[in-house]
Amino acid sequence: VSEFSIIDRYCRDLGRLHPETQVRVGDDAAIVSVPDNMVMAVSIDTMVEGVHFFKGTSAADIAHKLLAVNLSDMAAMGAIPKWATIALTLPDTDENWLAEFSDQLSSQASDFGVELIGGDTTRGPLTLSLNIMGLLPKGKALTRNGAKLNDDVYVSNSLGDAAVALKVLNGQSMIDDRHREALLAALHRPVPQVELGQQLLNVASACIDISDGLLADLEHVARQSNLTITIEVDALPLSVAYQNFIANGGDVVSALTGGDDYQLAFTAPVKRRHVIMELAAKLNVPLSRIGQTVARQGHAIELTRNGIPFQLDGVKGYQHFV
Amino acid sequence: VSEFSIIDRYCRDLGRLHPETQVRVGDDAAIVSVPDNMVMAVSIDTMVEGVHFFKGTSAADIAHKLLAVNLSDMAAMGAIPKWATIALTLPDTDENWLAEFSDQLSSQASDFGVELIGGDTTRGPLTLSLNIMGLLPKGKALTRNGAKLNDDVYVSNSLGDAAVALKVLNGQSMIDDRHREALLAALHRPVPQVELGQQLLNVASACIDISDGLLADLEHVARQSNLTITIEVDALPLSVAYQNFIANGGDVVSALTGGDDYQLAFTAPVKRRHVIMELAAKLNVPLSRIGQTVARQGHAIELTRNGIPFQLDGVKGYQHFV
Repeated sequence: VSEFSIIDRYCRDLGRLHPETQVRVGDDAAIVSVPDNMVMAVSIDTMVEGVHFFKGTSAADIAHKLLAVNLSDMAAMGAIPKWATIALTLPDTDENWLAEFSDQLSSQASDFGVELIGGDTTRGPLTLSLNIMGLLPKGKALTRNGAKLNDDVYVSNSLGDAAVALKVLNGQSMIDDRHREALLAALHRPVPQVELGQQLLNVASACIDISDGLLADLEHVARQSNLTITIEVDALPLSVAYQNFIANGGDVVSALTGGDDYQLAFTAPVKRRHVIMELAAKLNVPLSRIGQTVARQGHAIELTRNGIPFQLDGVKGYQHFV
Repeated sequence: VSEFSIIDRYCRDLGRLHPETQVRVGDDAAIVSVPDNMVMAVSIDTMVEGVHFFKGTSAADIAHKLLAVNLSDMAAMGAIPKWATIALTLPDTDENWLAEFSDQLSSQASDFGVELIGGDTTRGPLTLSLNIMGLLPKGKALTRNGAKLNDDVYVSNSLGDAAVALKVLNGQSMIDDRHREALLAALHRPVPQVELGQQLLNVASACIDISDGLLADLEHVARQSNLTITIEVDALPLSVAYQNFIANGGDVVSALTGGDDYQLAFTAPVKRRHVIMELAAKLNVPLSRIGQTVARQGHAIELTRNGIPFQLDGVKGYQHFV
């Protein structure tokens, strides 16, 4: 199979085809038009075998996560995902792998309204980069620097499940068998909060997706907004699987520092509490109030437990080049 | 050095900052606005150590080529390059390497009016992907499918120098020492024909950049335009270094099938010959008429030498997954 036919066979007409796409896969570049009242959001993320996923992870799981982590960046900006380009570096041409990968990518891309408009296939150690592009109404965006003094801090769904799943896979932790599947799904098949992000455009003051861990990511919001954020540890939303992990000797650290959650953390004025609860109900996405912004203090993030200052030892989040 | 500070230190405010950029490096996604009368061209290309460049290639040479091959895709569409995102997978954090890489990237990006608006840094085998975005006037583009019957076929500058340089580096070929530097520059520091591409928007009927070799790339134009292209082998533009390669026993095959040239091949109506010669003079870029389009025949590409059919054995161009 030549490079040309890989792109042709597996990447052409993948996802939801948009009328705004004027040139698709198969030329030197794709061409898209951005409606006059919109701007474009752009982000790129890479996954490397042995770093972001175990050797032997299924092609479908890899495809799911590659798109999900990029969709999550669109969610964090409040953008509507529209287009993607992909750079696939593959050790060999495994047709079954490629078929499974592209089937999953296609299915999820269609679900989220994304069209694949370009790709490059090269030989080498398994490495996948996806560049995602989305649209936002002009003048709107959820950035990291918009939090105001005395805003509430929220997080969607629950925290730390992917980190606990990793501990379980690494044999570092026990959980009861009945929770295993839900935990592994959190790790392998995260659900990006794309609809929530768009709905937060007129509600939140700042937003970020939790890819490196709640503390590491909220620290960006705090620093870029020039505030301190206080987090009440007992307010962190934990899944029943995570609660089972705690019952088996685990602690709350994974919920604070575990990466790969792909939930949204956001700030909003106190007067929006009611609107946010309505939004949670409408989208059927739990939104938990876990803290607030305060005037800038010694640390970007300060933890309390039952209102009493709480110290956490160790790293704040997953970093590749520590 | 953490992942965050790599992006911060080496990728922030890199290149030519555009007023159309509303959110730069440092948020979940960048935000750019596309002027109302323009559309966006998008392309992604990857380079892998040991596949696209030798282990030990300088960081500056890698940076140059990574951006150049992507700029060449913009050139082939006639687009004005504007923005890029980068995915860097690095085996370790070598500050000297990163400084050399980003200095070169920054310098070339500024020269070509490109702003780096996003990046992802991961640990792994040296692999670099760059996603480039450019602008085109609405309704204009140089695609591969626009060639018409009896169009002329042109190519910019000269062909095959990068392929001969590779032969020399691999010890498969001899050239006189005085040509070595020019050949290696063709391989390591290709000059993308960005200005030529933009000037061809109202002149050429189809265009492609020669990354996989003249024959392989023109075959895309022929097939997508549903024509056959005839090439007169003796009309191929060859550099003095290439002529020296022939004098030392080389042949014309590298000019026909060698990859990595990053020249533009394009078709244009016969009535444009005068305009094209004026354009060559204005830009100081030699443009050689090497063939023409004919009605669809048995092959997409047919070669002649002094007007007599000419057969070439072997592959048409470089393919990663042959």
